[in-house]
Amino acid sequence: FESKLPKVGTTIFTVMSQLAAEHKAINLGQGFPDFNPSADLLDQVVKAMKDGHNQYPPMAGIPLLRNEISTKMKAMYGHYYDPDTEVTVTSGASEALMASIMAFVKPGDEVVVIEPFYDLYIPAIELAGGLPVIVSMQPPTESNPLYQVDWQKVRAAVTTKTRMLIINFPHNPTGINLHESDLDALELIVDETGILVLSDEVYEHIVFDGKQHQSLARREALAANSIVISSFGKTYHTTGWKVGYCCAPSALSIEIRKVHQFMVFTVSSPMQVALAHYMKDPAPYLELSRFYQQKRDRLTRGLAKTRFKPMPSQGTFFLLADYSQISNLPEAEFARKLTVQHGVGVIPVAAFYGRPNADESNHQLVRFCFAKQDETLDAALDKLAMV
Amino acid sequence: FESKLPKVGTTIFTVMSQLAAEHKAINLGQGFPDFNPSADLLDQVVKAMKDGHNQYPPMAGIPLLRNEISTKMKAMYGHYYDPDTEVTVTSGASEALMASIMAFVKPGDEVVVIEPFYDLYIPAIELAGGLPVIVSMQPPTESNPLYQVDWQKVRAAVTTKTRMLIINFPHNPTGINLHESDLDALELIVDETGILVLSDEVYEHIVFDGKQHQSLARREALAANSIVISSFGKTYHTTGWKVGYCCAPSALSIEIRKVHQFMVFTVSSPMQVALAHYMKDPAPYLELSRFYQQKRDRLTRGLAKTRFKPMPSQGTFFLLADYSQISNLPEAEFARKLTVQHGVGVIPVAAFYGRPNADESNHQLVRFCFAKQDETLDAALDKLAMV
Ligand SMILES: CSCCC(=O)C(=O)O
Ligand SMILES: CSCCC(=O)C(=O)O
Repeated sequence: FESKLPKVGTTIFTVMSQLAAEHKAINLGQGFPDFNPSADLLDQVVKAMKDGHNQYPPMAGIPLLRNEISTKMKAMYGHYYDPDTEVTVTSGASEALMASIMAFVKPGDEVVVIEPFYDLYIPAIELAGGLPVIVSMQPPTESNPLYQVDWQKVRAAVTTKTRMLIINFPHNPTGINLHESDLDALELIVDETGILVLSDEVYEHIVFDGKQHQSLARREALAANSIVISSFGKTYHTTGWKVGYCCAPSALSIEIRKVHQFMVFTVSSPMQVALAHYMKDPAPYLELSRFYQQKRDRLTRGLAKTRFKPMPSQGTFFLLADYSQISNLPEAEFARKLTVQHGVGVIPVAAFYGRPNADESNHQLVRFCFAKQDETLDAALDKLAMV
Repeated sequence: FESKLPKVGTTIFTVMSQLAAEHKAINLGQGFPDFNPSADLLDQVVKAMKDGHNQYPPMAGIPLLRNEISTKMKAMYGHYYDPDTEVTVTSGASEALMASIMAFVKPGDEVVVIEPFYDLYIPAIELAGGLPVIVSMQPPTESNPLYQVDWQKVRAAVTTKTRMLIINFPHNPTGINLHESDLDALELIVDETGILVLSDEVYEHIVFDGKQHQSLARREALAANSIVISSFGKTYHTTGWKVGYCCAPSALSIEIRKVHQFMVFTVSSPMQVALAHYMKDPAPYLELSRFYQQKRDRLTRGLAKTRFKPMPSQGTFFLLADYSQISNLPEAEFARKLTVQHGVGVIPVAAFYGRPNADESNHQLVRFCFAKQDETLDAALDKLAMV
């Protein structure tokens, strides 16, 4: 038989995590914390299980959790999502993304994605029979060390064949955020084209330097045309629990739920109950940016003393670093070498490109994850100082 | 926009569970236990969480759990599945089914399904762009009160356009099992046509009257062409945890994993760790058939004293009952009435048909779930005696 996804191999995050494990390297590659969630949250899971929450919860998620999500969205971003019809609990952000793409993209439809991009988007589009249309960000320059989205290029890529635009801010892997001017530009595009926007906002609570996350839920005109996706994994240090959600107008949510109900049917009941109770206190997510900013700064300061050149990160728990002073190797090879020979696992930025060969020549960048204990970061920095 | 699944509404299991909850009816509809999993298993989850198993497990499932699944398959059915390349842990059997269908069914491909069938199959096929080809079972008659598969009809439905045959034994909702003669017939079909078989075996450990489950993994020729799917939810009373798995030759598993890695990426780490430890002891699944047989018998005996006519159930935790002595209403209406007016929630068998109107005239059957405490079954029987 012919594979439906002939170009897909094992995801880079798995490959690099395995390599790191094999070589006992410190894993700053795949994005997950090396510390446990709060003991309170774990206690809530224990309580939920003992209380009998071990059977099928409602398909769209338990009402208590959908209410809490709705309350948070309103409090943070001002838009009210009806918990009954507009909030759906999913098996992580992955399932929310896949279900949304499956629900709306038909064979032959175009979907605009902004490069670099998370590795799920293209295979998901292709599985639905859609055609990815890739718009590249402006790469960093000496004078502007941040990647930038050129919204005019995005606008130009949207045609009558376009079914959906996928965006992701705070952005993995570049660490750039949306600003009000970006929302303005996006609003203009949506206004002119009516395009549906799939907004992957899993790092919504990790935004640095006193800034606020510019969720699409902040603008009514955007919220009306968008699917906003987030994940508890990144927010509560529970990446392995696979609980996320999506918020979208009811006409869109109906279609997403049709796919969701046959893709996984529903999501772990004890985790849902626990998260619903834990979420009532906004402190954990309100304090998350400060928690990770300290780690960003620690890693940035440390890297500045090495031959790596750290780039600014405005959000997420990632930062990029240039290694051109160290090596001429292409990114994938350098990342392997760093893992195997120097004991620090990272992700090559080329993995976030649809055309790795075309773009690799432009930069020599690897991604570091700083969702790690300070000691882990320090131990990695000791190794990196010797590279 | 046009819906990609225009015919899909909310799944019947959700609809009937909601109706039962609204009317405080005893819910013998949706298939889930009304009792908790073993305290040992819950303790294992607590231990796994405290031990730090809260971040991304490997994409295909933790090695320990895949090993235990492989060991069990070998011990029960004789076929060895390589845990590294042939066993994949999924978000319940639902995700295993959807990922398998997505991985292999291309637009225009035909997929043979046997009616009555579980409500996921048709929408999943349609989402992949495939065309369901429905083969009806022989309905029960006075002389043979069991549904029967006519393998010649199945064989006739397999053409050069057929990509896959989906089967499900022990069968939901009819409670019929596969027998050796069925495996013979199936082996002949696979031998003649090379057809890929998707075998939904989630009730593998619930087989009555001293019989053994006839897994496709029992025959090398079938195992080589099949994806065998099961679920911990039905076996360990944890339907709400959403952990299942599929076993398939590595060439097939590679493709399923490509979809799985972008559909959910992976499955709850604490639950996987807990299940791996719990599974080492085969007693819980070896004793399950006896546990449920007692409940089947209790419900059957009770129904025999009412105007319902219970049908034999060879496996699963369901049985069908004929209500033609009570009412002429079509099944969906009768099920609603039973829930609302008589306080017992059930599932209309019409919900398992692709052409409900055509078939409803043939029988008046509802499905009862007996995965309930004895007191629940007795309370329901008291109500049913008055119908
Ligand atoms: C699902 S594994 C990848 C985790 C992640 O989001 C990342 O490392 O970018
Ligand atoms: C996923 S809800 C349906 C549960 C079930 O298998 C059934 O009731 O048939």
